[in-house]
Amino acid sequence: ICKSLLTWRNRSFGFLEDGTFKQRNEGDITWFCNNTGFMWEIAKELGAMLIFAEHRYYGESMPFGQASYSDSKHLNYLTSEQALADFAILIKNVKSTLPGAQHSPVISIGGSYGGMLSAWFRMKYPNIVVGALAASAPIWQFPGMVPCGAFYKTVTQDFAKSGYNCEVNIRKSWSAINNISSSASGLVWLSEEFSLCGPLKNKNDVGSFKNWLQETWVNLAMVDYPYEANFLQPLPRWPIQAVCKYLTMDSTVSDKLLLQGVAQAAKVYYNYTGSTSCLNISQTATGNLGILGWFYQSCTEMVMPMCTDGVGDMFEPEEWNFQAFSDECNAMFGVRPRADWAEVVYGGKDISAHSNIIFSNGGLDPWSAGGVTHNISESLVSIMIPDGAHHLDLRYSNKHDPPTVRAARTLELMYFKEWIRQAKRPHRSHSHYRL
Amino acid sequence: ICKSLLTWRNRSFGFLEDGTFKQRNEGDITWFCNNTGFMWEIAKELGAMLIFAEHRYYGESMPFGQASYSDSKHLNYLTSEQALADFAILIKNVKSTLPGAQHSPVISIGGSYGGMLSAWFRMKYPNIVVGALAASAPIWQFPGMVPCGAFYKTVTQDFAKSGYNCEVNIRKSWSAINNISSSASGLVWLSEEFSLCGPLKNKNDVGSFKNWLQETWVNLAMVDYPYEANFLQPLPRWPIQAVCKYLTMDSTVSDKLLLQGVAQAAKVYYNYTGSTSCLNISQTATGNLGILGWFYQSCTEMVMPMCTDGVGDMFEPEEWNFQAFSDECNAMFGVRPRADWAEVVYGGKDISAHSNIIFSNGGLDPWSAGGVTHNISESLVSIMIPDGAHHLDLRYSNKHDPPTVRAARTLELMYFKEWIRQAKRPHRSHSHYRL
Repeated sequence: ICKSLLTWRNRSFGFLEDGTFKQRNEGDITWFCNNTGFMWEIAKELGAMLIFAEHRYYGESMPFGQASYSDSKHLNYLTSEQALADFAILIKNVKSTLPGAQHSPVISIGGSYGGMLSAWFRMKYPNIVVGALAASAPIWQFPGMVPCGAFYKTVTQDFAKSGYNCEVNIRKSWSAINNISSSASGLVWLSEEFSLCGPLKNKNDVGSFKNWLQETWVNLAMVDYPYEANFLQPLPRWPIQAVCKYLTMDSTVSDKLLLQGVAQAAKVYYNYTGSTSCLNISQTATGNLGILGWFYQSCTEMVMPMCTDGVGDMFEPEEWNFQAFSDECNAMFGVRPRADWAEVVYGGKDISAHSNIIFSNGGLDPWSAGGVTHNISESLVSIMIPDGAHHLDLRYSNKHDPPTVRAARTLELMYFKEWIRQAKRPHRSHSHYRL
Repeated sequence: ICKSLLTWRNRSFGFLEDGTFKQRNEGDITWFCNNTGFMWEIAKELGAMLIFAEHRYYGESMPFGQASYSDSKHLNYLTSEQALADFAILIKNVKSTLPGAQHSPVISIGGSYGGMLSAWFRMKYPNIVVGALAASAPIWQFPGMVPCGAFYKTVTQDFAKSGYNCEVNIRKSWSAINNISSSASGLVWLSEEFSLCGPLKNKNDVGSFKNWLQETWVNLAMVDYPYEANFLQPLPRWPIQAVCKYLTMDSTVSDKLLLQGVAQAAKVYYNYTGSTSCLNISQTATGNLGILGWFYQSCTEMVMPMCTDGVGDMFEPEEWNFQAFSDECNAMFGVRPRADWAEVVYGGKDISAHSNIIFSNGGLDPWSAGGVTHNISESLVSIMIPDGAHHLDLRYSNKHDPPTVRAARTLELMYFKEWIRQAKRPHRSHSHYRL
C-alpha cells in the first residue's frame, strides 16, 4: 500500500534559480509510511485520502540529484521552512488537480521531526491544514526552553524501571570500559566480547565505542514498544526489559563480568534476529533515516542542547558546549548553527495564538522531555501516553497495546472529526465597522 | 524625531553565506516615519517605544551595498518572507538588549505594502507581535481573489464625485491624445502644453505619456487627503477637486481645449509649489519609494492583476495579461513571477485561523479594492473610512480630518489596548489529558 502515486516538482525560496525537482511521496518515505499504521486504520472511517510527502534532501527527493550533499552550496536549500513550503504547494496541487479534493479539509500528521513539521505546518499554513497531530514532537528541545539534561534522565528512568540494578550497572559500565581499555589486551578483549566488526585500537576508538553504546541505550528508550517491532532495529517486545535481563549484577561484580553483560545487552538491540555477524560501531540504526541530512539540519536550524551529569542520569558527565558543536559543524559542513533561529521562527514557548494542534507524547520516550506535555489552550492540547515510547500512537494497533495508547488514538480521532466539522461549517458572515 | 537610533545586522534564509548586513531603522524609512504621525500621537498614552524598521533592499538597507540591484543573483534575497524574518530578529534583539523591553508586548503597524507585511507578520509570527494594524493593505489584490478591474473603478469614482464632468473628460482625453499625437505638429503641441522635459517623438513616447498620465490619476486617488499634504507630491487639500476644476468642459469641447485642461490638471499634481520647470514623464512621485525594488517584488511574489474596460472606468481598455507581464519581468530581471505563491504562503481569502489584526481601508483609496473590507472574525476586523484615501488613519491628526478617520483611530487605539491587556493577563494553567 505504500506505493508511489504521484511525483511533484517543487522549487525554492528565491527566484534566482527557477529550478524544480521531483518530490516523492513514496520511497524511503515508504519506511515511515509502513510505520504509521494509525493513519491507514482511520482513513476509511474519515473517508480520507492519505499522502506521504517526502522531505526534500531525504530518500529520493534530491533537489540536485547526487550532488545534493556535495557541499554547503547545494545543501543551502535544506531547511524546515522550505520543507513546509513544499508541503503547502503539494497540497494546493493535489486539491486543484484531483477530482473531489478541492474542498476537502486536510490534516497534517507526523511523528518526531515529522511531528515538529506537522505542528509548524498548522502554525504557518492554517489556510492549508485545518489541524495537526504532532506525535512525539520535541518542539521545545531548543536552547533555553527545557533543561538540557531532561532527555537523558528519561532514558535512565526507562532502564531503572525495566529491571533490577539495570541503570546502576550501565552507569558503572563507563568506568569499567575505561579501566579495561587502558591496556592493549583489554582493547582486544573488549572488541571480542562485543563482536565488533573492527577492533578498538586507541583512546579515540574507545570514545567512539562509548558514544555508540550511549546511543544504543537512547534508541532502545525510543523504541521501547510493548510488542515485537522493527523501527530502528528488529526487536522483541519491551526490549529494555530484555536488555536489562543481562544487567542484574550486584555491586560486587568485576569489570569484565559487568561488560560481558553489557555486551549481551547490546546484542539484544543489534542481533535480535541472530543474523548479525559483527557489530559496527559507526551505525546504530538500520534503514535510511537520512542521518547526514539531520546532522546538517542540527548544524543549522535544529540546535538541540543535550547534557548529562552522571547523577540524575546513567551516563558519563558531559556539558552542553555550543561552541564546540558549532566548530564541529563548521569543520563538517562549513556552516555554523544559529542557536536562536528556531525560537524566532517557530515561536518557542509562546505558541498560544495558534490552534488545532494535538501534541502527543510517550512517557517512556526521551523526546517527550522537549515536547509539549501540558495543554496550552482549548485547541492546543497535550495527550500523554505514560507507557508509550516514541510516537507509539502512530503505529498500527496491536493486541499488546496498553489502554493508554488506545485511548490516545480515540481522542485524536475525535479531534480530527471536530476539526473537519469546523472546516465544513459555513462561515458566519460578519459586517465591518462602518463609521 | 525620525533619527537613527540603532542599526542591526541581519542575515538570510539558508546558511551558505553567513553574511550579515546593516538594517537601518531610520533613513528613507524617515520619509515613512514622518508620514506616520498616528504612531507618534498615541505612543505616549501607551507608554510605547516606536521602531521604524527599514525593509531590506530599500533605502540604506542594502544587503550587498551598491551591488544589491546589479543582477538577479544579488536580488535573490529580496522577498517578503525575508523581510518578515528580519523584523522578527530585530524585535527579538531589541527585547533582549534594551532594558525594560523584555516583556513588552509589540504591535506591528504598517500601511500599503507595509500594511500587508504588518498583517502577515502577525499571521506568521504571533509569538513576536500581539496584534497588527494593516492600513490600506491590499492582501487580496492577487490572482483570483478580487476582480482585476475594481482598482481602476475606485479611481474613476473618486474623479466622478469630485467635479462636474471630471471623469467623463478624462475618459475622452485618451482619444484626444491619440488624435492630436497622430501628426508631428500635434506631438510638438502636446509636449509644449504639458511642459514636458523631453518632447514626445513617436508612438512609443505617446504610449509612455498616456501611462504616465494614468498613473498620475491613480496617485491622486491614493493621496486625496482633506488637507495640504506631501506624500507622493506636495498637494493642496482634496487635490482631486483641485484637478477637476480644470476638467468641467461639456461634450462639445475640442480635443485641444480638452487637453489644455488636462495639462493644467496634471500640473496641479506636478507643480503645486510652482517650482517645477518641466514635467518628466518617467517619474510620478518624489521621494525614494524604491520603485525598482517594488517592481522586482511584483515580478516575483507580488503579482497583482489590474485591468480596465473604459466603461466602468475612465481609462483605455486593457486586459490583464499574465504572460506579457511575465515576459516583461524576464526581460528586465531574468526572473518570472509565481502567480499563486502569495496565496499559498499567506493564505489568500482563507485567513480566519489568525487573530488580532485590524484591516483599515479608505473608501477613496483604489487599494481598498484588494483590501479586507468586512470582518472575518471577532479579532480579524475591518474598519472602513468612507472619505479616507490611502492610509489616512496613519497620518498625524489634522483639523480637517473627517469624523470617520477620527473614529477609526479611536477604535484602533481601543484594540491596541485590548491586545496589550490580553498579553499581560497571566495565562490560565491547563492540565494535560492523562490517560
